[in-house]
Amino acid sequence: MRYLATVSYVGTNYAGWQVQPDADSIQAELELVISRVLNTPTKIFGSGRTDAGVHALGQTFHFDCKKIEDLEKFRYSLNCLLKDDIHIVKIKNVRSDFHARYDVKEKVYSYFINMGEANPFEKDRVYNLMRKLDTKKMKEALLFFKGRHDFRNFTTKESDDNHFIREIYDASLVKDGDKIKLTFKGDGFMRYMVRLIVGTLVEVGLGKIEPLEISKLLTPIKRNVVSYKAPACGLYLEKVIY
Amino acid sequence: MRYLATVSYVGTNYAGWQVQPDADSIQAELELVISRVLNTPTKIFGSGRTDAGVHALGQTFHFDCKKIEDLEKFRYSLNCLLKDDIHIVKIKNVRSDFHARYDVKEKVYSYFINMGEANPFEKDRVYNLMRKLDTKKMKEALLFFKGRHDFRNFTTKESDDNHFIREIYDASLVKDGDKIKLTFKGDGFMRYMVRLIVGTLVEVGLGKIEPLEISKLLTPIKRNVVSYKAPACGLYLEKVIY
Repeated sequence: MRYLATVSYVGTNYAGWQVQPDADSIQAELELVISRVLNTPTKIFGSGRTDAGVHALGQTFHFDCKKIEDLEKFRYSLNCLLKDDIHIVKIKNVRSDFHARYDVKEKVYSYFINMGEANPFEKDRVYNLMRKLDTKKMKEALLFFKGRHDFRNFTTKESDDNHFIREIYDASLVKDGDKIKLTFKGDGFMRYMVRLIVGTLVEVGLGKIEPLEISKLLTPIKRNVVSYKAPACGLYLEKVIY
Repeated sequence: MRYLATVSYVGTNYAGWQVQPDADSIQAELELVISRVLNTPTKIFGSGRTDAGVHALGQTFHFDCKKIEDLEKFRYSLNCLLKDDIHIVKIKNVRSDFHARYDVKEKVYSYFINMGEANPFEKDRVYNLMRKLDTKKMKEALLFFKGRHDFRNFTTKESDDNHFIREIYDASLVKDGDKIKLTFKGDGFMRYMVRLIVGTLVEVGLGKIEPLEISKLLTPIKRNVVSYKAPACGLYLEKVIY
């Protein structure tokens, strides 16, 4: 049987989603605990990677095993054994050809910037910029990212089967006092894509780049990857939609 | 000159407010940084202690030094040097006979209980009880704590100059879904007092103690300290009022 799980985690203490030698990863911790509860070595397949320090509210992964009789009890056992910074929110049965990565329809990421004073309770949970941003200009810039574009200047990925073409269905900026929440919905996000977009938006907000520049960066004649990568700690994988 | 500072901290990584040998304390970290910026050994005097793992939104302390010309710049320097889980919110000049501890008029503590599933982002920040509580009964019980009482059964303090008499000006319980926020305002709280009150309220919420029992515990014939001490991680020193 194949199962799809939704997992929430604080990425701070991990080297990212993917298993790595000599470093703690979310995937390794999940595989360890699932294998222990199922009493057999079990591999899991994520919807995609998240980088070191990036958080998730609704990352997803699938795995195969014998029929689990009581899914809620199984989920409870996993959560008892998992470290406190990882929590399985949901597990459901899916058809045997379902794939957590290849069947993704949409991903939602959010990014939090704090322009005001640091709050110790938000350490490693937001980007403490501590400078004011022109959110009107950032909103203008954000509009350019919407739609289907060649994002080769917004990823460090070396090559891509889809020629770096991705579609951003929706992008929004909500300001609440000194806090900014950016949300991106799209068919897929390449390595560092959200963080490089946010970094560029911050440069717009600081007046270093004009919003119109974005349009040039999205119609590249030759590749010139932007350099301002917003830190991992402000980024959250909110949701994976199938 | 004497200065009064307000500080916010995540207590998780500290052995509590007070300086201790071989353990990190909030006070020691603050004294280290203040002494460094003032370039002279400086002692600070807190409004009172907080236990290991207890958080503060508005703990206060005073210290003496030469006149500080630019208080905002001084505060900024301190926050740059302080660890990310401690943040000085405010510093102001006070009269030379002001005392952060002896001049306290009121303290406000809050306590957070989560009755639902653990949220990894709230690890060490709430008490994850994971059981349902009867908040109606807890509210009934809470009423008994209001007012001036002999709290000797709600502290482990060995002796007290005021015969364990303290006044709770106000106590409230707010339920929001699976979350409970308890707030206590009073003239002073003895060692473990809030946590022992909360522990007892949890027992009421679980149906193990009847609300009326509280009234007996508050009119002690002989001392019989209650045993259920709610964990430190749910407790926040919200405010100190002078």
